[in-house]
Amino acid sequence: MSAFSLEILSTDGRARRGRLQTAHGPAETPAFMPVGTAATVKAMTVEAVASTGAEIVLGNTYHLMLRPTAERVARLGGLHRFMGWKGPILTDSGGFQVMSLSKFTTQSEDGVTFASHIDGSRHLLSPERSMEIQNLLDATITMAFDECPPLPLEERRLAESMRRSMRWAERSRAAFVPRPGYALFGINQGGISPELREESARALVSIGFEGYAIGGLAVGEPQEDMLRTLDVTVPFLPADKPRYLMGVGRPEDLVESVRRGVDMFDCVLPTRSGRTGKAFTRRGEINMRNARHRDDPRPIEEGCSCPACRSFSRAYIHHLIRAQEILGAMLLTWHNIQHYQDLMADLRRAIENQSLETFVRDFHATLNLGDIEPLEGGFPP
Amino acid sequence: MSAFSLEILSTDGRARRGRLQTAHGPAETPAFMPVGTAATVKAMTVEAVASTGAEIVLGNTYHLMLRPTAERVARLGGLHRFMGWKGPILTDSGGFQVMSLSKFTTQSEDGVTFASHIDGSRHLLSPERSMEIQNLLDATITMAFDECPPLPLEERRLAESMRRSMRWAERSRAAFVPRPGYALFGINQGGISPELREESARALVSIGFEGYAIGGLAVGEPQEDMLRTLDVTVPFLPADKPRYLMGVGRPEDLVESVRRGVDMFDCVLPTRSGRTGKAFTRRGEINMRNARHRDDPRPIEEGCSCPACRSFSRAYIHHLIRAQEILGAMLLTWHNIQHYQDLMADLRRAIENQSLETFVRDFHATLNLGDIEPLEGGFPP
Repeated sequence: MSAFSLEILSTDGRARRGRLQTAHGPAETPAFMPVGTAATVKAMTVEAVASTGAEIVLGNTYHLMLRPTAERVARLGGLHRFMGWKGPILTDSGGFQVMSLSKFTTQSEDGVTFASHIDGSRHLLSPERSMEIQNLLDATITMAFDECPPLPLEERRLAESMRRSMRWAERSRAAFVPRPGYALFGINQGGISPELREESARALVSIGFEGYAIGGLAVGEPQEDMLRTLDVTVPFLPADKPRYLMGVGRPEDLVESVRRGVDMFDCVLPTRSGRTGKAFTRRGEINMRNARHRDDPRPIEEGCSCPACRSFSRAYIHHLIRAQEILGAMLLTWHNIQHYQDLMADLRRAIENQSLETFVRDFHATLNLGDIEPLEGGFPP
Repeated sequence: MSAFSLEILSTDGRARRGRLQTAHGPAETPAFMPVGTAATVKAMTVEAVASTGAEIVLGNTYHLMLRPTAERVARLGGLHRFMGWKGPILTDSGGFQVMSLSKFTTQSEDGVTFASHIDGSRHLLSPERSMEIQNLLDATITMAFDECPPLPLEERRLAESMRRSMRWAERSRAAFVPRPGYALFGINQGGISPELREESARALVSIGFEGYAIGGLAVGEPQEDMLRTLDVTVPFLPADKPRYLMGVGRPEDLVESVRRGVDMFDCVLPTRSGRTGKAFTRRGEINMRNARHRDDPRPIEEGCSCPACRSFSRAYIHHLIRAQEILGAMLLTWHNIQHYQDLMADLRRAIENQSLETFVRDFHATLNLGDIEPLEGGFPP
């Protein structure tokens, strides 16, 4: 088994087209990683996920440690075998979700104690425990345990939080068990402060990780704040290591972040939107519950290769959503993940062809068109 | 396009092994038809349904006339195109469900007026309207409009209801638009009264149908009542036409009914059970929520070809059900439909091999074993 690595195949401006090598096979970058919180990408089979071109999926440490528990997953052969996903799996550290989902949390330098949102049982998450859990899950890519403070936050407290995360990053590095083809990623913090982001990046680089994530963004701040933060942070991350922007985002966020040198993304948006009747198209997000679709024989998106667009009309999808049929969530989730993967494939191709700026211009122009016109009289001739 | 027909390929006792020819392709009998109420077999793609060996699916007139409406389905090219199912589709007449699901129903000789359970709007279902709706849906097999009285019911009222259903069967026959490869099935009624069942069968045969259904059973009566009713009804149905036992049932009901000469079945049990955490196995139905499965690395059923059994442990399915993940409903529904289709394939093979009685004995013996033993210490060595 060779080492975990990122090969940069080509660049276009600050954007990079690469290939990750991992213990569980390769993955092309820039990559969008579907979120499989509780050991399943919601409403999709792993075959369906793979068919979209997705190569890495996420698992959530917080959810899995509570149910079915990391120890049980380990006894059952690890997360890959448990959920039937053969490719790389990235697990988050639990740091973000323990603060947003659990109750009665107590934070200290050691870590976070909390009560499960499922049954109220008490648990500890610390850098050492997070590393242990992610090891038990057999995650291909382990994330360092960090604190993800809410924004906005005064500079002094933001700095304290970031520095604690850096001490936790060091403890994570020490507790992580290195294995060939496996990786530990550090997480850059510092809110939207350029100084703190730089300080954090330097701290992480001096510890040394197989990859670098940018955390603490996509928490409600305006897109320009996020992009400006990327502009001032990415230059301090090693060029030969993958860069992962956590929890991002909308298609336009992915495009603008790839332009700024980001290689990896995850977000619940395409899957969650699929369960609430929303479909992503090149001309924007559309609500399939809307009555304008109920007689429309056209697919969600002409030319899309997903089963929803290959076989079904907008009218059918609209009907399924209205009737609260599970198949509606299944088909829209599939479509949305396909849409995201197609976007990533387009971005990779554009970087290879040195045509990223043209692609980005066309992308925004198409997005601004809005949805296709309703048919005359509600029906085609 | 050739005519709708049933070819009897072999018999074993009263059981028949046959092949239906329809405008939408052939179907092997005895057949179990998954229920696709609102133009979807709940929680399954049509590819998944077809992969189990199912060749005919059901649609429900009552649901479809209210949403998305039969007229809309017709404008969109018919139910096959709407839901992407290329094989034969059978639609019920709406008679049963209008009585069980709608509100403020008024029955008369003409038909039934009712308020939609969705939005309260008023509708009429009559033999003529039911035929019109099923024609708009482009059902391969149309069911005559009938009254399905609750059991038990006093003989006199049962007789009145059955005779009204026979008059409605005649009006259904007159209103049905014959098309090559399409069929209209009459529905035998009469509760568990042998005299009424015989009278109903004779009435239907004198009208003449492409197939004959046995209705008004599987409404809560003991299995022996149902089987005795089959014993006294099936002999009065034409040997060269398909016989369809509506709304049945559990695997043991299918086996015993096939023995008595039934060719077709439908039931929501495998799909509904799949959405409530239950799995059918040869050794009986098991509840995947049960804690005994949480550490079990074995599949639901050894040797089953469905994706749930090929790729996943009972522990994983248990986890998905506990976590209320949509994938749990998807996988269990798939497994259950696969289980039903495998049973039908076994029954067809047994009839071909003249070994049905041996098969039935083994079937009951295996069913009586109950679920596989828990693993020692909860885990395999």
